[in-house]
Amino acid sequence: MRVLIISADKFEDTELLVPMYRAQEAGGLTQVASTGAGEITGKKGYRVAVDLDVAQVNPDDYDALLLPGGKAPAALRENATVLEIARAFMKAGKPVAAICHGPQILAAAGVIEDREMTAYPKVEDELTAAGAIYRDEEVVVDGRLVTSRIPGDLPAFNRELMKLLQ
Amino acid sequence: MRVLIISADKFEDTELLVPMYRAQEAGGLTQVASTGAGEITGKKGYRVAVDLDVAQVNPDDYDALLLPGGKAPAALRENATVLEIARAFMKAGKPVAAICHGPQILAAAGVIEDREMTAYPKVEDELTAAGAIYRDEEVVVDGRLVTSRIPGDLPAFNRELMKLLQ
Repeated sequence: MRVLIISADKFEDTELLVPMYRAQEAGGLTQVASTGAGEITGKKGYRVAVDLDVAQVNPDDYDALLLPGGKAPAALRENATVLEIARAFMKAGKPVAAICHGPQILAAAGVIEDREMTAYPKVEDELTAAGAIYRDEEVVVDGRLVTSRIPGDLPAFNRELMKLLQ
Repeated sequence: MRVLIISADKFEDTELLVPMYRAQEAGGLTQVASTGAGEITGKKGYRVAVDLDVAQVNPDDYDALLLPGGKAPAALRENATVLEIARAFMKAGKPVAAICHGPQILAAAGVIEDREMTAYPKVEDELTAAGAIYRDEEVVVDGRLVTSRIPGDLPAFNRELMKLLQ
């Protein structure tokens, strides 16, 4: 199981670390891609090593995509390569898990038309504008798309993500 | 599955949140006990609600004990009630999971004689002084005692803790 995590500075720390550790617990390999090398720093100060630049990502190398929240997605959705990667995972029908502001990337990628999903409450209008059906629930599973709202939803988010990965 | 978490201000945020969310993912009930009511704040700023004062804890109500690290254990080991609770779990043979500085509480409680375990490297001398056999490994399981060293060990820590809880 190979999980690609795309994030950037000001990620919501637990929304990256908790699912990453969960996938690793299950024996999964995780890689963090970002725009640039080195490390990224979360809103609360956790530092995470960047394994590769998004320009180096081949979606075929991974089984699933994880998009944590925080302020990172608002920057990442401006990056055409990030959007292409998101489209590749969605088109291939691979598990895609996005939490909090992470779904902003999927909205910008134009891949959520008629999909049931959730996100941080303030993101609702962006999602519906992109054609999604917003649900205010701790986790929404639509096919292989898993979405949640906030850090407190992480137990449900991980539970549903792991069902799709195993 | 009912898991008691004992911690205090300046806990290592992920060492409390990651196992707590993991137990909740598996359907477990978690409760956070501390010295005083309200909430506790981690080193990185995460706030966690306190469910009960340690003086109210009845160890019979729980199936396992989790002791996160950070600076909280150095304060908690001065509290006689906390040490009594730790002794009750160890004596009953229930799963006890401690990470980083968490094992300091077990050392102070006098319950680690001849036990194989690990902890944050700087805690090694305290553990051996209390009779433990220190191992520098990501996770050490000795009977129903599970210990780890640092946040990066959390995948292995959770994996072994969940084996004991399920």
